[in-house]
Amino acid sequence: MGINLTNFLSSKSKNKRLMEFQDLDHIDGVSISTVSADLYNNKRDDLVMFYFRDGANHASVYTQSKIISENIKWNLNQKAKKIFSLIVNTRNANCFTGKLGYRGLEKIAEIVSEQLSEKQKIDDDQPKRIRNKEIIFGCTGTIGETFPEEKIKNKIPELIEKIKYTQNKYIWMKAALGIMTTDTQPKMSMKECTIGNSRIKIYGIAKGSGMIQPNMATTLGYIFTDAEIPNEILKKLLRKNIETTFNAISCDGDTSTNDMVSIFSTGKAKHPKINNINDEKIKFFEESLNEVLLNLAKRVVADGEGASKFITINVQNCKTENDAKKIAFSIANSPLVKTAIAGQDPNWGRIVMAIGKAGVALNYDKLSIKFGDLSIVQNGKFNSNYDEIKTADYMKNDNIEIFVDIFNGSKKFVAYTMDLTKKYIEINADYRS
Amino acid sequence: MGINLTNFLSSKSKNKRLMEFQDLDHIDGVSISTVSADLYNNKRDDLVMFYFRDGANHASVYTQSKIISENIKWNLNQKAKKIFSLIVNTRNANCFTGKLGYRGLEKIAEIVSEQLSEKQKIDDDQPKRIRNKEIIFGCTGTIGETFPEEKIKNKIPELIEKIKYTQNKYIWMKAALGIMTTDTQPKMSMKECTIGNSRIKIYGIAKGSGMIQPNMATTLGYIFTDAEIPNEILKKLLRKNIETTFNAISCDGDTSTNDMVSIFSTGKAKHPKINNINDEKIKFFEESLNEVLLNLAKRVVADGEGASKFITINVQNCKTENDAKKIAFSIANSPLVKTAIAGQDPNWGRIVMAIGKAGVALNYDKLSIKFGDLSIVQNGKFNSNYDEIKTADYMKNDNIEIFVDIFNGSKKFVAYTMDLTKKYIEINADYRS
Repeated sequence: MGINLTNFLSSKSKNKRLMEFQDLDHIDGVSISTVSADLYNNKRDDLVMFYFRDGANHASVYTQSKIISENIKWNLNQKAKKIFSLIVNTRNANCFTGKLGYRGLEKIAEIVSEQLSEKQKIDDDQPKRIRNKEIIFGCTGTIGETFPEEKIKNKIPELIEKIKYTQNKYIWMKAALGIMTTDTQPKMSMKECTIGNSRIKIYGIAKGSGMIQPNMATTLGYIFTDAEIPNEILKKLLRKNIETTFNAISCDGDTSTNDMVSIFSTGKAKHPKINNINDEKIKFFEESLNEVLLNLAKRVVADGEGASKFITINVQNCKTENDAKKIAFSIANSPLVKTAIAGQDPNWGRIVMAIGKAGVALNYDKLSIKFGDLSIVQNGKFNSNYDEIKTADYMKNDNIEIFVDIFNGSKKFVAYTMDLTKKYIEINADYRS
Repeated sequence: MGINLTNFLSSKSKNKRLMEFQDLDHIDGVSISTVSADLYNNKRDDLVMFYFRDGANHASVYTQSKIISENIKWNLNQKAKKIFSLIVNTRNANCFTGKLGYRGLEKIAEIVSEQLSEKQKIDDDQPKRIRNKEIIFGCTGTIGETFPEEKIKNKIPELIEKIKYTQNKYIWMKAALGIMTTDTQPKMSMKECTIGNSRIKIYGIAKGSGMIQPNMATTLGYIFTDAEIPNEILKKLLRKNIETTFNAISCDGDTSTNDMVSIFSTGKAKHPKINNINDEKIKFFEESLNEVLLNLAKRVVADGEGASKFITINVQNCKTENDAKKIAFSIANSPLVKTAIAGQDPNWGRIVMAIGKAGVALNYDKLSIKFGDLSIVQNGKFNSNYDEIKTADYMKNDNIEIFVDIFNGSKKFVAYTMDLTKKYIEINADYRS
């Protein structure tokens, strides 16, 4: 991967800390353990448990695909008020595995809930009986292969034995590495904010466009906070903020059967009660949550398969946000635009093509297109002051910003993508080994 | 291009003649001339005139893009009953050229109509006064560059001087070559049929996914027949038959500002009058028109940028044709599917992914997927008889057929595409020279 993370995160970030590789630390109410269930046959950690000792409020968003994995079906069927554990395995997507794949999760949930309940009896003053429906799953990897139920079940005692009640940066790093498939970098992000006078932590890890054997880029993102936010408000916050973050990225326009982004709220940081999403007290929390989500989403794109450039597409002054989004993704998903950028070619004719094919009605006598600060099209005409040399120089950057202004409204959308390189073809055209 | 035309056309063609490189010949009422207006600065023919001595009935379909070229605007503004000339230039798309680009066409139309009217006085017993609005244009090439009005105007006398009233295979070849941009092969197709007892010719030429400098794959297709079909019926026939031919192909999912497919009917072959599209007498004509369109559309895909394999995607037994089309194009436009096929990898997990992301509700317990005759998924499960070696062998073919059966209805759609190779990236990521 040729993209410098500091460079690509620096241009837009308000917070210098987001630019750095962030160290996540202890967060009350979350325990992590990781093991190798030998799913890759190479001893790497591939099974990660998040344990919420006193339970956590929870919300998730899932793939829009009409074919979904068995773990997403499982998660959608559970209606628990609190979640006690999230278990993530890699290497096997548990998709197209039928009733056997679903039953496998059920059996794992039975063992986990039983053994965690036993642990509660030993460690907790007021032990709780943890139920199957309080366990949810993330899976990523190969589609259609038999789900490795036995290998995972065998490792549950070790996973639970390894649980510690104080976390540090090393265990977060292990978790971020443990959920990777062929990502080249672990993805972590954090932000602190306040609710009332209490300091609140928001931590997140993600995995992105790895691919292994017959599957595709699955995105998993998991956010943890010690704030106390009710399930309903968590759901609204996540749905609202996913739109401009994980739903604003595209690597190749393909959508996995397993995509999942979740937020868990342990409620350990005491603060005034939050009753609704418009509560002034969570304004700062929401901003911070958005930053964590966006930071993770950008890291997923920057580590996209074969990526050599990070591309930000700003579409401005549209009639509706949906119009802006359609145009932004039409550009972000255009192979012709993405190959031109890979070739460092300021090929604005292809941007015009992608705007046109988005299907949004527009008066292009007003259209403006810029690469960075450099004006290419102004008032629907090729800018006579266009500077070929400066523009060619600009295209050599790792971080390319495209601005499209439609001038028929006030709504905007920003999409993030990467270029399309020979390396992408190499990664994806190789024989399964 | 590694694709053998005979191989890829043979598998589905009912008519052996479609498999061959077809020689087009004389067709009454159509004259062709070609010149080099030196648009490429290399003396190749780049300006082609089709002249209909007695006018031709006409219908066209244009790009769905919201940004259209000036020649398409011109064509849409003309409402003539008969067309006397179609003029096609390459190298310049006349898009994003503003009023100047439109005015350029107007001036060219003025000169052409005047000089053709003069020619009518010399050659014809009942000379007609040809009007601007009876001239239409096809343009393909670079977006945003000044339209080369002068260069084209200067060549009109030569174009008209070269007109002959008898055509042969050489002039058709010159026309097919003259409309190419970076196509590697000229694209021609023909079919003869009957209306009543009269023999009818249907000839067609096309150009496809060439690309030069800041532009994209423009598709142009022009069909000529000596049948006498009214404009309204031509329009209906073209709109209906474009759906399963030119609208069933995809090279990279991108759409040009200049796409155009037209049909011209000279009425020179005398036959019983056709009054409506359901007229039994044109059933054979319609079938033949569809064959010519499909043959040209396939040739466009087979010559797609960097193509090494021709891919046919059959989606069957859906509730609606639109559902089948959505799934077929979701597969056809998936970079992950296309790179897998480039790598000769029977990566059926990616087909599953593409079916899921199409957004069509389905019960995948019934889903079936085949590569050629080889069953991969049956009743929503990976087929236990799957033969890895046979399937790997099958993927080595130039011509790959994918069959997806949804089993919840009776509608189908067939889409055609090619694989996504490093060569595509190479062609499209190169600096503009």
